[in-house]
Amino acid sequence: MTAFEDLMEFQHTTEALSLVAERLGWDQETVMPRGATEQRSEEMAAMEGVLHARRTDPRLADWLDGAEAPDAAGVRAIALIRHALLRNAAVPATLAEEIARTTSLAQGIWAEARATNDVAHFLPTLKRVVALRREEGEAMAAAGVGGGDTYDALIDGYEPGASAASLAAMFGAMRPRLVALREAVLGAPTPKALSRSFDADGQLALARRAATAFGYDWTRGRLDLAVHPFSSGGVNDSRITTRVVETEPFNCLYSTIHEVGHSSYELAIDAAHHFTPLGHGVSMGVHESQSRIYENQLGRSRAFTGWLFTQMQTQFGDIGLADADAFYAAVNAVRPGYIRTEADELQYNLHVMLRFDLERAMIAGTLAVEDLEEAWNARFLADFGFAVDKPAHGVLQDVHWSVGAIGYFATYSLGNVYAGCLNQAMRQALPDLDASLAEGSARPATAWLRENVQRHGSLLPPTEIIARACGHAPSEAPLLDYLEGKFRGLYAL
Amino acid sequence: MTAFEDLMEFQHTTEALSLVAERLGWDQETVMPRGATEQRSEEMAAMEGVLHARRTDPRLADWLDGAEAPDAAGVRAIALIRHALLRNAAVPATLAEEIARTTSLAQGIWAEARATNDVAHFLPTLKRVVALRREEGEAMAAAGVGGGDTYDALIDGYEPGASAASLAAMFGAMRPRLVALREAVLGAPTPKALSRSFDADGQLALARRAATAFGYDWTRGRLDLAVHPFSSGGVNDSRITTRVVETEPFNCLYSTIHEVGHSSYELAIDAAHHFTPLGHGVSMGVHESQSRIYENQLGRSRAFTGWLFTQMQTQFGDIGLADADAFYAAVNAVRPGYIRTEADELQYNLHVMLRFDLERAMIAGTLAVEDLEEAWNARFLADFGFAVDKPAHGVLQDVHWSVGAIGYFATYSLGNVYAGCLNQAMRQALPDLDASLAEGSARPATAWLRENVQRHGSLLPPTEIIARACGHAPSEAPLLDYLEGKFRGLYAL
Repeated sequence: MTAFEDLMEFQHTTEALSLVAERLGWDQETVMPRGATEQRSEEMAAMEGVLHARRTDPRLADWLDGAEAPDAAGVRAIALIRHALLRNAAVPATLAEEIARTTSLAQGIWAEARATNDVAHFLPTLKRVVALRREEGEAMAAAGVGGGDTYDALIDGYEPGASAASLAAMFGAMRPRLVALREAVLGAPTPKALSRSFDADGQLALARRAATAFGYDWTRGRLDLAVHPFSSGGVNDSRITTRVVETEPFNCLYSTIHEVGHSSYELAIDAAHHFTPLGHGVSMGVHESQSRIYENQLGRSRAFTGWLFTQMQTQFGDIGLADADAFYAAVNAVRPGYIRTEADELQYNLHVMLRFDLERAMIAGTLAVEDLEEAWNARFLADFGFAVDKPAHGVLQDVHWSVGAIGYFATYSLGNVYAGCLNQAMRQALPDLDASLAEGSARPATAWLRENVQRHGSLLPPTEIIARACGHAPSEAPLLDYLEGKFRGLYAL
Repeated sequence: MTAFEDLMEFQHTTEALSLVAERLGWDQETVMPRGATEQRSEEMAAMEGVLHARRTDPRLADWLDGAEAPDAAGVRAIALIRHALLRNAAVPATLAEEIARTTSLAQGIWAEARATNDVAHFLPTLKRVVALRREEGEAMAAAGVGGGDTYDALIDGYEPGASAASLAAMFGAMRPRLVALREAVLGAPTPKALSRSFDADGQLALARRAATAFGYDWTRGRLDLAVHPFSSGGVNDSRITTRVVETEPFNCLYSTIHEVGHSSYELAIDAAHHFTPLGHGVSMGVHESQSRIYENQLGRSRAFTGWLFTQMQTQFGDIGLADADAFYAAVNAVRPGYIRTEADELQYNLHVMLRFDLERAMIAGTLAVEDLEEAWNARFLADFGFAVDKPAHGVLQDVHWSVGAIGYFATYSLGNVYAGCLNQAMRQALPDLDASLAEGSARPATAWLRENVQRHGSLLPPTEIIARACGHAPSEAPLLDYLEGKFRGLYAL
């Protein structure tokens, strides 16, 4: 066997083991008996140990040195393995273990702190997490990751090619138009909301119909309940989860459609890429572009909500909204709120910007972790015009920092921006899409996204995939145009 | 760290990874999307590769050489790891891989053959499996496993300490009394059977109540549906499965109670043994003794079925049986039948004897695989008095041989024999047990079994665990006494 074949065979097994670890995570969040929590952390640690050993295996460097790729996919696979090795080898094993141990405990401490609104309970842990991740970022930056910048090296783990500078520029271009739009919308009358309760079985039945409408492949996935909705797995087994709040059926419905976007991406990747480094979504931003375009540009469109309105009535009888226009307005209502995950399309990115700036300052050391809550509250008041009432609605609302996910938040907005670009191109390519959506089928959109984005997996870098699909470099303009058009129409501005 | 500590730490991770592989198997049989079958075999192969490498890791021999155990459990752990290494190191990696590959494909071929009653379709595969397993047994025997005997080396993989000779002696003592009892019972009038249908939800609700009655810990387990019921996992996560046939509610119910026995054993093992070689059931025979005593000596007792009768009526209304005595007779009805898994307590061991003799002859080479069907049919006619009507009811009915499980069948009967011994001792220790069973609680029995058998895990060899629990060496006599007493009573012989 050639060095390239050795490398790819080794990688094949690593990819399979990585899928096993992911399946274990799914099990934990959906079906695992609660008494198994401690045991599961032992099992996950054992799997992480195996994976870490493989990702830093000394033979990788030799194979990489000798590997000659037979084609473009092979060249890209080598580059991705080389880059991953650069990242992994830069981090001392003791540091990697310390991060794993600290973040695994930190999530529980964060959950306790959030439940009791006790920031002080979480602070020492968060301080440790930030210090460890900074140390990791520095080690990777010293090896050349992220162009030698610490925070950029952390971003690179989620969005290869992105940087604090590029993201800050993007946010800078977005903020004025979003702020102006938000002000105008909140000055207009609020649309009527749902006010009754919707039984869980009915919500789940509707969620399944919606997933089917988006072409979710039930032979290669399934839908379960989880506290926090997520999608999990790849190749031919990518499962989705949702949650049910009886008074908020849009939560269950749009969580499902969002996760269908993520899973559809994984399930659409060319089989030739399976069990290679090309066999999964290329970045968090591109992944999020798929979940967001399914959820928002398609799922919250006037056309699709028209179909959904009749489905809701069929499932639940009178839902208290007069017609499809009122339903469309309710689905897209913009209201003041504390919580990022519950934010509408318009305000969502403002929540992200706040986190991006604060975490960047923490990693740079210009914001002490002790001062984080104060900084959060001041910034929230400035950005949203009202004060945070309790930490669970403020600095403690997100799990990310506790698990060490620093450098991650901005990918949500990047996903929105990419979704904006893709939506513009897709609408040009599919002028009759709304007619299909109005009949409850997003399949033409799914087919377009599969062909232009999803099937490639990680064959091309994130911005190149988007650029090829859209015919121009990614830009925030299409998203902002779309949001302004949509919300000015909805609110008659 | 000492060599012993190194060894136990290494083993800890191996045990955790082994639990991961088992959880993956559970997933496959219960919740996995059907499109993921091929992918799962890649994932399982990757896990098996990791586990095989650890089980034959060159460092094991060094650690074993230097290890000094601090206590009796440590001595036993070293002995078990040493024995496993002896077995694993004896088998060339190429042979182990060939067996894994062949048996993984063989199961599908067997299923096809059974569905079409086409023995010829399965024969070449079975021939290959038998040859490979014989080769494996020879390799292990050459290293001293099974006292140097090929078939005993295979038995050793399921029931350490047992041999073809000891099992043949056991069967020899059982056969005449079972045959005589069977003849007498089948000459008596057949009790009335259930004749209506029972809805799936009701059956599952009842199965859950029965599992609770046996003290199943729902915080460390769960119940799901599977084609073939099984239990899976250990430490603090041992799950059970059952199936539902609407016209046969006893199938769902007693499958559940049977699997509760297996899972309860795993869940009752002392925490000190977790993630060590002592942390799981010591042998298939002892495991089966727990599932059988739960299912039969307890679950099919007059006392417990009295409670169950009222539960059935509460759940389903009139079930067509006049009273608890009629129900007890229906639960324990003895009827001619082809299928081992559907056999009653009395006839079950006769099905096992047939398989034990045939597989022993195949491994010895005195029965050619080509002649297996003819030998099966002749033996079945001789033992049961009527002819096999089709291969799915005969030689193709069990999955075991296709997956390479040769040397396994006898452990079912060994489990019955051990259950007979344990039941005798337990009844002496708990004279009021029936009163508790009549009220729907098997918890005193569960507590006695936990204390005397289950908590030890693999701390002691199989026969020693049974002997200590019963106060005498295992013998088939208590089982036969129990069966004669029970069925002579039931059939008024």
